Amino acid sequence: MAEKKPKLHYPNGRGRMETVRWVLAAAGVEFEEEFLETKEQLQKLQDGNHLLFQQVPMVEIDGMKLVQTRSILHYIADKHNLFGRDLKERTLIDMYVEGTLDLLELIIMHPFLKPDDQQKEVVSMAQKAILRYFPVFEKVLREHGQRFLVGNQLSLADVVLLQTILALEEKIPNILASYFPSFQEYSVKVSNVPTIRKFLEPGSKKKPPPDEIYVRTVYNVFMP
Amino acid sequence: MAEKKPKLHYPNGRGRMETVRWVLAAAGVEFEEEFLETKEQLQKLQDGNHLLFQQVPMVEIDGMKLVQTRSILHYIADKHNLFGRDLKERTLIDMYVEGTLDLLELIIMHPFLKPDDQQKEVVSMAQKAILRYFPVFEKVLREHGQRFLVGNQLSLADVVLLQTILALEEKIPNILASYFPSFQEYSVKVSNVPTIRKFLEPGSKKKPPPDEIYVRTVYNVFMP
Repeated sequence: MAEKKPKLHYPNGRGRMETVRWVLAAAGVEFEEEFLETKEQLQKLQDGNHLLFQQVPMVEIDGMKLVQTRSILHYIADKHNLFGRDLKERTLIDMYVEGTLDLLELIIMHPFLKPDDQQKEVVSMAQKAILRYFPVFEKVLREHGQRFLVGNQLSLADVVLLQTILALEEKIPNILASYFPSFQEYSVKVSNVPTIRKFLEPGSKKKPPPDEIYVRTVYNVFMP
Repeated sequence: MAEKKPKLHYPNGRGRMETVRWVLAAAGVEFEEEFLETKEQLQKLQDGNHLLFQQVPMVEIDGMKLVQTRSILHYIADKHNLFGRDLKERTLIDMYVEGTLDLLELIIMHPFLKPDDQQKEVVSMAQKAILRYFPVFEKVLREHGQRFLVGNQLSLADVVLLQTILALEEKIPNILASYFPSFQEYSVKVSNVPTIRKFLEPGSKKKPPPDEIYVRTVYNVFMP
């Protein structure tokens, strides 16, 4: 019997769920989505005790209703061998993911800032990427000379980093070409992993950059 | 040869490091601390490439310099069997920890709010604890009737939850007695785990509630 496809519960946009979509896609797992469009839909999930802490992202998978973005990512990465071969590799992947998620969080929150603050924040996130995060990953790759960040194989760390790079490049074109040319090669290589290449092609479940409709939907669903 | 004790780098106060202290103590691991008191000390760690993303908490352990609170906690929990017996238990623990850390984060940030906002925030965090987080854990414990949250043995989830309960009770005395009497029993039981009882006794490395000196130190060390 075919395994039941995971079902993702979230608005029809990137937000905190997009990383889950990326990691499922990288693992070659097909999934279904139930898009939240109204407060009532969220309320129904809450009233039915489907959300452990009353929040989404929520993913129905393997008979569980997983919540908390990181916990969902960890479960998928564990199940699909994207979390290293031993505790040392696992810990490196975990640290790289945590750092990258700190940067990605700025990108996720960006469309919800006041218009006046949005341009300033782009400058600030570019600085953080250029000064704090990207140099770390460039150095790691330069020093071991391998294709992926950890253990010479695709891991959760590569998936989250590529997602973050591409999202940042949408806001700041050429950020890699200008500052991290060698790092850009890495980005191309990870993009060429077959499952990921497929996710990057039109028609996949990858979501477009947040627009006004997405922002309005988020307010509709989540604001009291 | 005795294993080298882990060394913790952070200001002399709770902040994000306190959970690391709790988990090491619960695992029965002795540790040393290097307290950051000045910007120059932080700068020195940064200049020496001791901080992967230029931030603390940082813990020297087993020849590594671990950063990112969650990654540090995961490593210690993995090493000391505080992360469940299989992927299902691990995932439950991970979700419970993530939820509890969301609540704990409010407590950690509280002393840095404007005085006017501090009282409002206590009300708000009490509401979140009472409505969103504590009922989940009370239900879990009630339904399986065991002493600990997952798998009938102490895990990272119990340690982080007890830390959070006690920190919240400092701000809102009797929050458990008033709303969650049965949950209070759990809190007493976990407090009586020998390693944890020792950590709760005077003279341990558990830090006192944040005071003005701690807040000033944090500003001194971290503000540009």
